[in-house]
Amino acid sequence: MGKQTLTEKAQRLLDLHRGPRMLVLANVWDVVSARMVERAGFPAVATSSAAVANSLGYADGQHIQREEMLAVVRRIAAKISVPLTADLESGYGTSLDTIAGTGLGLVEAGAVGLNFEDSTGDPANPLFEIAEQVEKIKCLRETGEKLRVHIVINARTDVYLEAVGEPASRFEHTVTRLNAYREAGADCLFAPCVDDAVTIGKLVKAVHGPLNILARPQTAPLAELERLGVARVSLGSWPMRAAMTAFDRFVRDLRERGTLESLEPGIPYAEMNKLVE
Amino acid sequence: MGKQTLTEKAQRLLDLHRGPRMLVLANVWDVVSARMVERAGFPAVATSSAAVANSLGYADGQHIQREEMLAVVRRIAAKISVPLTADLESGYGTSLDTIAGTGLGLVEAGAVGLNFEDSTGDPANPLFEIAEQVEKIKCLRETGEKLRVHIVINARTDVYLEAVGEPASRFEHTVTRLNAYREAGADCLFAPCVDDAVTIGKLVKAVHGPLNILARPQTAPLAELERLGVARVSLGSWPMRAAMTAFDRFVRDLRERGTLESLEPGIPYAEMNKLVE
Repeated sequence: MGKQTLTEKAQRLLDLHRGPRMLVLANVWDVVSARMVERAGFPAVATSSAAVANSLGYADGQHIQREEMLAVVRRIAAKISVPLTADLESGYGTSLDTIAGTGLGLVEAGAVGLNFEDSTGDPANPLFEIAEQVEKIKCLRETGEKLRVHIVINARTDVYLEAVGEPASRFEHTVTRLNAYREAGADCLFAPCVDDAVTIGKLVKAVHGPLNILARPQTAPLAELERLGVARVSLGSWPMRAAMTAFDRFVRDLRERGTLESLEPGIPYAEMNKLVE
Repeated sequence: MGKQTLTEKAQRLLDLHRGPRMLVLANVWDVVSARMVERAGFPAVATSSAAVANSLGYADGQHIQREEMLAVVRRIAAKISVPLTADLESGYGTSLDTIAGTGLGLVEAGAVGLNFEDSTGDPANPLFEIAEQVEKIKCLRETGEKLRVHIVINARTDVYLEAVGEPASRFEHTVTRLNAYREAGADCLFAPCVDDAVTIGKLVKAVHGPLNILARPQTAPLAELERLGVARVSLGSWPMRAAMTAFDRFVRDLRERGTLESLEPGIPYAEMNKLVE
């Protein structure tokens, strides 16, 4: 766990949402990727639920068991010194008992923050009711308080991601949800799949707390997001998919042409061992 | 497990050592990498112990627990249809009971072959005695026979890798060990860190069974290895280290310059989910 207590790490992660710079999180899925992010100088590490799930053989979207996800979080937390925030989807259950167990498991695994989304996984009814999600956020906050750790709750709404309702209604719907989540105790508010600078700028002003934007190739540049007042940017599974695309390219080339030409020498064996030790 | 039984998969893997083409194995460490290798058309998949260990937060060299290694093997085996061979280092123990347990665990995990090396991990005494290693190989063979699965044993000697003895003695030492392992029942003989074509050509002729060479950037080209009569080529953790170097480059660039320019769009989210489902 390094020298800092989890209480201190949680406070440190919370502080990173208050500037002066935008918090940038390059999402990881295993110990190697986490150590690389820490080594590069990032002040915190975040997991991507999709990247972890894919690596372990699951499609994204809570097909993985909670304990399997937390086992990866635990491995990563044991090997880094900076605060860790984990993407725990919608908490792996609907009852408050289960949500409290997820919060407890998160802290026991050594992480101090989580992404907590309002997707149900049911296309016919894609989002949990606001009141229900609010109770879950309050439950996560209380769970942390009992453990004397301020769990940094990054409350996410998937109104845009799931394309809920008429396009013209999504902005207001997102604001309503995020402000309700903020009122319930969320530390940061996450609206993935909002990409254009105009909407992002409006969202920064409309929500009553720090805003997290998902940066993907079509999103406004990071410097512009920072200028607009975005507090936190994360990258989802894009970095993992990019890395594995390099592997895929090598594998196809090896199969089709029988050469190692597209295998770059890469990080030496001894350096990789030392990185994760 | 797909449609084939493990008995059939083991026979298929064994057949791949008998030509007509050299068996090329692009080593993997998780479900995504394994599925990419299968998708590219490779007839078999092999794990890299170093890559698996690093990904989970261990240096290579049996610092990982056997059950953790087998858990990764099990995840991969459940998601591919082609035969899987696992790098199980020196078997995670020295007693024949433990070695038999490792062989049983391998088959129960759904794999049908293994790399089995003679490194002790002790720099003062780097290799197990030949007689001891021979008994372990016989034990692995017997364990498979009881399960009616011909475990494809790739017996590895680390004479070159550990730079054992005077350089001039290593060739004969390697041949002595590999032929003893072959006599004990090994299906393939592996001498990592032999890179030049002249030595490889001599080794092909001197050993009494199929030869596995580790291909790394300094090794003779694959086409030349095939021409020399090498039966099997594997890549160790080079592909994983190359893929993670792409991630590392992106992460450093993001940290130092604040841009996503070195993040390639990569495999789409939905395609990645479908790949591992």
